[in-house]
Amino acid sequence: MVLDVNETSEPLPALAQIPPDLRSLADYERHAPAHFTAEAWRHVQEGSGEGLTLRANRSAFAAYGFRPRALADLRGGGTAIDLFGRSHAAPLMLGPVAYQRLAHPDGEHAVVRAATALDTGMVVSTLSSVPLEEIAGTARAFARELGKDTPPLWFQLYLQPQREHSLELVRRAEAAGYEAIVLTIDAAIKPAGMTLPEGVSAVNLAGMPIPRQTAKPGGRIVLGTPLAEAAPRWEDLAWLAEATRLPILVKGMVLGEDARRVADMGAAGIVLSNHGGRVLDGLPSVLNVIEDVAEASQGLPLLVDGGFRCGTDIVKALALGAHSVLIGRPQMHALAVAGMPGVAHAIHLLRTELELAMAQLGCPTVGDLTRERLIDLPRM
Amino acid sequence: MVLDVNETSEPLPALAQIPPDLRSLADYERHAPAHFTAEAWRHVQEGSGEGLTLRANRSAFAAYGFRPRALADLRGGGTAIDLFGRSHAAPLMLGPVAYQRLAHPDGEHAVVRAATALDTGMVVSTLSSVPLEEIAGTARAFARELGKDTPPLWFQLYLQPQREHSLELVRRAEAAGYEAIVLTIDAAIKPAGMTLPEGVSAVNLAGMPIPRQTAKPGGRIVLGTPLAEAAPRWEDLAWLAEATRLPILVKGMVLGEDARRVADMGAAGIVLSNHGGRVLDGLPSVLNVIEDVAEASQGLPLLVDGGFRCGTDIVKALALGAHSVLIGRPQMHALAVAGMPGVAHAIHLLRTELELAMAQLGCPTVGDLTRERLIDLPRM
Amino acid sequence: MVLDVNETSEPLPALAQIPPDLRSLADYERHAPAHFTAEAWRHVQEGSGEGLTLRANRSAFAAYGFRPRALADLRGGGTAIDLFGRSHAAPLMLGPVAYQRLAHPDGEHAVVRAATALDTGMVVSTLSSVPLEEIAGTARAFARELGKDTPPLWFQLYLQPQREHSLELVRRAEAAGYEAIVLTIDAAIKPAGMTLPEGVSAVNLAGMPIPRQTAKPGGRIVLGTPLAEAAPRWEDLAWLAEATRLPILVKGMVLGEDARRVADMGAAGIVLSNHGGRVLDGLPSVLNVIEDVAEASQGLPLLVDGGFRCGTDIVKALALGAHSVLIGRPQMHALAVAGMPGVAHAIHLLRTELELAMAQLGCPTVGDLTRERLIDLPRM
Amino acid sequence: MVLDVNETSEPLPALAQIPPDLRSLADYERHAPAHFTAEAWRHVQEGSGEGLTLRANRSAFAAYGFRPRALADLRGGGTAIDLFGRSHAAPLMLGPVAYQRLAHPDGEHAVVRAATALDTGMVVSTLSSVPLEEIAGTARAFARELGKDTPPLWFQLYLQPQREHSLELVRRAEAAGYEAIVLTIDAAIKPAGMTLPEGVSAVNLAGMPIPRQTAKPGGRIVLGTPLAEAAPRWEDLAWLAEATRLPILVKGMVLGEDARRVADMGAAGIVLSNHGGRVLDGLPSVLNVIEDVAEASQGLPLLVDGGFRCGTDIVKALALGAHSVLIGRPQMHALAVAGMPGVAHAIHLLRTELELAMAQLGCPTVGDLTRERLIDLPRM
Repeated sequence: MVLDVNETSEPLPALAQIPPDLRSLADYERHAPAHFTAEAWRHVQEGSGEGLTLRANRSAFAAYGFRPRALADLRGGGTAIDLFGRSHAAPLMLGPVAYQRLAHPDGEHAVVRAATALDTGMVVSTLSSVPLEEIAGTARAFARELGKDTPPLWFQLYLQPQREHSLELVRRAEAAGYEAIVLTIDAAIKPAGMTLPEGVSAVNLAGMPIPRQTAKPGGRIVLGTPLAEAAPRWEDLAWLAEATRLPILVKGMVLGEDARRVADMGAAGIVLSNHGGRVLDGLPSVLNVIEDVAEASQGLPLLVDGGFRCGTDIVKALALGAHSVLIGRPQMHALAVAGMPGVAHAIHLLRTELELAMAQLGCPTVGDLTRERLIDLPRM
Repeated sequence: MVLDVNETSEPLPALAQIPPDLRSLADYERHAPAHFTAEAWRHVQEGSGEGLTLRANRSAFAAYGFRPRALADLRGGGTAIDLFGRSHAAPLMLGPVAYQRLAHPDGEHAVVRAATALDTGMVVSTLSSVPLEEIAGTARAFARELGKDTPPLWFQLYLQPQREHSLELVRRAEAAGYEAIVLTIDAAIKPAGMTLPEGVSAVNLAGMPIPRQTAKPGGRIVLGTPLAEAAPRWEDLAWLAEATRLPILVKGMVLGEDARRVADMGAAGIVLSNHGGRVLDGLPSVLNVIEDVAEASQGLPLLVDGGFRCGTDIVKALALGAHSVLIGRPQMHALAVAGMPGVAHAIHLLRTELELAMAQLGCPTVGDLTRERLIDLPRM
Repeated sequence: MVLDVNETSEPLPALAQIPPDLRSLADYERHAPAHFTAEAWRHVQEGSGEGLTLRANRSAFAAYGFRPRALADLRGGGTAIDLFGRSHAAPLMLGPVAYQRLAHPDGEHAVVRAATALDTGMVVSTLSSVPLEEIAGTARAFARELGKDTPPLWFQLYLQPQREHSLELVRRAEAAGYEAIVLTIDAAIKPAGMTLPEGVSAVNLAGMPIPRQTAKPGGRIVLGTPLAEAAPRWEDLAWLAEATRLPILVKGMVLGEDARRVADMGAAGIVLSNHGGRVLDGLPSVLNVIEDVAEASQGLPLLVDGGFRCGTDIVKALALGAHSVLIGRPQMHALAVAGMPGVAHAIHLLRTELELAMAQLGCPTVGDLTRERLIDLPRM
Repeated sequence: MVLDVNETSEPLPALAQIPPDLRSLADYERHAPAHFTAEAWRHVQEGSGEGLTLRANRSAFAAYGFRPRALADLRGGGTAIDLFGRSHAAPLMLGPVAYQRLAHPDGEHAVVRAATALDTGMVVSTLSSVPLEEIAGTARAFARELGKDTPPLWFQLYLQPQREHSLELVRRAEAAGYEAIVLTIDAAIKPAGMTLPEGVSAVNLAGMPIPRQTAKPGGRIVLGTPLAEAAPRWEDLAWLAEATRLPILVKGMVLGEDARRVADMGAAGIVLSNHGGRVLDGLPSVLNVIEDVAEASQGLPLLVDGGFRCGTDIVKALALGAHSVLIGRPQMHALAVAGMPGVAHAIHLLRTELELAMAQLGCPTVGDLTRERLIDLPRM
């Protein structure tokens, strides 16, 4: 993949004020490269391989159009949903994103404050650049300051080569008040990422061994190496389900058959994801498989991420069977461009667009967003 | 959406003469940005969201091609049609466009003079920047000067939060001699537009309350607010049908089922429209749904707008079942570039292209433009 | 349509030598704009409307691919075909092109010399810029000089408003030794072309009245005017068939039903054509309708033009049922860039490519180019 | 075809070190033009005609996506395959490429050393710019130096106009230790290539007559000339099968019917190829015909080339039925940019990507790469 990046100049600091031409998540994305080093921007933005999956995630939305209900009665509507006994202001959460201090010195502190201000749930990454306990602490303190409830906080788990380390992470998340575990199953095997700059690291894993790929010209690279030995297997999911009382969502599948098996093994929810096109290039777009996965999920909460950038995107996913949507890269774009206010603004823009789209569709509640509201659009 | 706009320089005034390289509506569109401020051009030109619907309106035309009748007898042909007992020189009207003084100081005065000179009907917007009575007066005076009939004038109505204000607008339109009411149902809920420059305003609504969206970070934005409460409902259409003797056309639907219900409620005509891609991004192109809506309209006059730019576009819409076509943005392009003569020229170009296309198709009358004259073209 | 043109500088004269980077007709087309005035280039190159048909003619070729015959025996092969009792060196002719002096001072003289040198038939236009008798004379003289036969010369006829003038053109063509009449039926109704420069005119029509469109703002433009009255009708074809003993080919249809009727009325051949996308924008590409027209033509010689630029294009048309192919605009490109040698070179390139393609397909003769040699290619 | 080439400046020498931004074969391809003369780059890179087949080879990969197996057990996996009794480290070979000294002074010496270092087989071209015996000698010497086995070396054969010369090439290959003959059948008839620079020539053919096309304006060009007489026929394959004990693979077909006939005649393997889009423009992409050819090949080893640039490309070909993949142009790109280390790096990158893709798919062995692992992706 070739990206336009800010190769030469110093990255700009986050703006002190949000300029009036930032009116959509796409606007943030356009402004973002100037606020990153070239290497960090590539890390945030690139897809794997040739970017087929990355682009498919976006282009899939254009295949669906809307069948509005004319002159509908919109009185009494709203966007709230319930998940695991908690009310969410809208079918929208902040998905797990590694190393948010790459975008802004405040990193996850800024993001969780924005989430708190906007009553929006956040899934904290195993690879957060602020310790998971501190993130939860910031949320609680800021909620108190604002006089509102702490938003739902979930912890995203990468299984570690040794189970004791995985268990340690789970216990810490439980102790810090996280309300669910999101187990990611699709990223154990991927190329090493960027070299992290001074001051940014996987602080939650301090002291744990990091598995490395052993690439030797002419020799085995992945298969047949310790890396392949350590890749998570179905038995690891069974083990984890025994190891914690928190609800477990399994993240990183695109096939109904896998969702079914996950559901049968007692998972509490499914996160349909191709990892934003960052792992295996050629996975189908998430939008194209929601219906299949939703049918196989047997009623479990189904969340989805990958390419969501505007309110109509969310409507399409919900109409196809998802219960909520996660955004990933847009957090980093908004955080780099305008810090905590940028992230809050981005969430607000999405929710504004969502409400407008629902109203224009004649759908006052999330439950009105059914498959009949969609049509296939011809390819342009 | 990202548009090329005239960000820095002063907008050019309208040209005193029409240069020879303005030979199509597309030429006017290419020249237009230099005659607008950046903000006004965005207001005129942008679609909502990512512009899916805006682009679909145009690209849909390329899906249809022609089956001409070779060596046909063209004698005695013509383009005239009848609507509501009035003869129209061609199946073409000027659709409702807000704030035409954004394009030219003469605004609606210039446009209605062009319409009068070319015997072309005009639908005046609730949001006209010249009072509706003055527009009608200008038409009558100019028609007298030219020794011809006043062209058909219709009034486009946005329902106001209070029925008394809607009724006041209808009564004023009746009194000013407007011959039909075009009730727009698809734009009650949309983001606030641009800040209008000095001297341009919704003069017809002077003194009436303007509903505003209440956007509060973290709170409800549309649904559950007074804005949603005030959105028009089916009962409002019933009320309006009782309130006036003028024929009512209902504008802003894309589904046959809505057209059927509108027809059943006694509307006199249908205006198939997705609001030029300005409201809900993801609505289907108008061309793709004409056949469905035409079948459901039970013979009512069916007008359509959205992306019409040349004579063959009109032929395609008519062959699919529309009775006439409205143009919107091209009025603003031609008005800004060359004032009243520009608008007259644009209408003339369209009609020239329409007659040429009909002749080349071997179709001397509008009635010859049937579905058999079209073929599907492969996507390029 | 927007074209890149040579707006400011003087057109270059034809090159004295053919540079080595001219290796295809596409290369000539890329070099050509610099050798025309902007207005002449637009006249040569533009399609009508938005250029849908112009582009479709080209893009249609990409929909067909090849099924070669491996390790075929190529001995004894060749490209010759017979038409109306004459042998053509290849299934390729120079189609009728108006005003060739726009491209080069020698105009049709240069083109017919190239045709003669390459044993390639030429269809001379009613709108030639050199008198039809002189063109035939140049061909005969140059053939004598080269010691070969005069190539097949046909005359393309536009019916004139009065039959006596049409008849006069036919009689002159007969007297000058033209071997067939190609009656064009699809261009009677089209917008007036460019203003011809000094020294370029429709010399064959000197003294005859030129029909003009009567475009009056607000009035009728084509339909209901004398122009529409004079458009050719089926009865004119019947009249012409009686008026000459020369074989008549009818040019300018894209539908099988028209080809069938033309065949039933005694025409000797069909020229499938959408006038190179210059008349009604939206006609299907010629490649997409060859099979339909070939089936309806009842075995009559079927020629086709529109977008042919390389040898594989010709193979595709023949495999779909055409008997020969005409090129139009490439004559003007090559003529402007390199005069008579350029046109000869362009013909030679096409024939080289045709022979290579046939050999690579394992098809030693034109008769081997059947439908089974083609496959559908997926759209890219 | 129009290519961006390095028209003016001197080609850069190969880099002494591989810079860190060379992370994929596409990166090498982007850097390569600066390391070639314009003419050599065109020779390497261009497709025939308009490049339909060249582009189709690449774009076909985007039509297939993946169905991964979640949480699969990857232990004990690997990429090794067997062909003709020899183990290959991965399903990947270096295909025959003419004149490698166009890319680098060391030419085939450098390439075969890279192949040896990476345990990768190489098919040496009849048109190699280093004698076939020297290439084999270099491989043996370098293998000894590295303490490993010589990689599989095969010889690609173009039949010569006289059988004695073809036989001489085969005998030399046998004597030099080549383990198979790859008979190319699709390139006998193609335009003469570039003028070779000083010091680069078809050294294996020194002293043998070179067939030339006889192109005479107006005359026959291929068909009916000695060139067509000398094109290979089925009887030549039969003759060759008698003439050598080495296994014969037949290269250059895209149809199952040809593969079947080749198999019936006793060939030992099939190389599905459209010659990288360099011969007949319009041949289908190789990916689109693998399944057809695989079914017809009756279990013979099936290799394929044409457009392979990354690990997921290889996975797709194998899942559709190929046994191994050849790369062509990427050798030249890497060789020009960074010499022998560049070629070794390119092979290593491909194998890294292949292993990652297999692991991410949940497929620990090549045998797991079956058709069920693929899905159709919608066109973007």
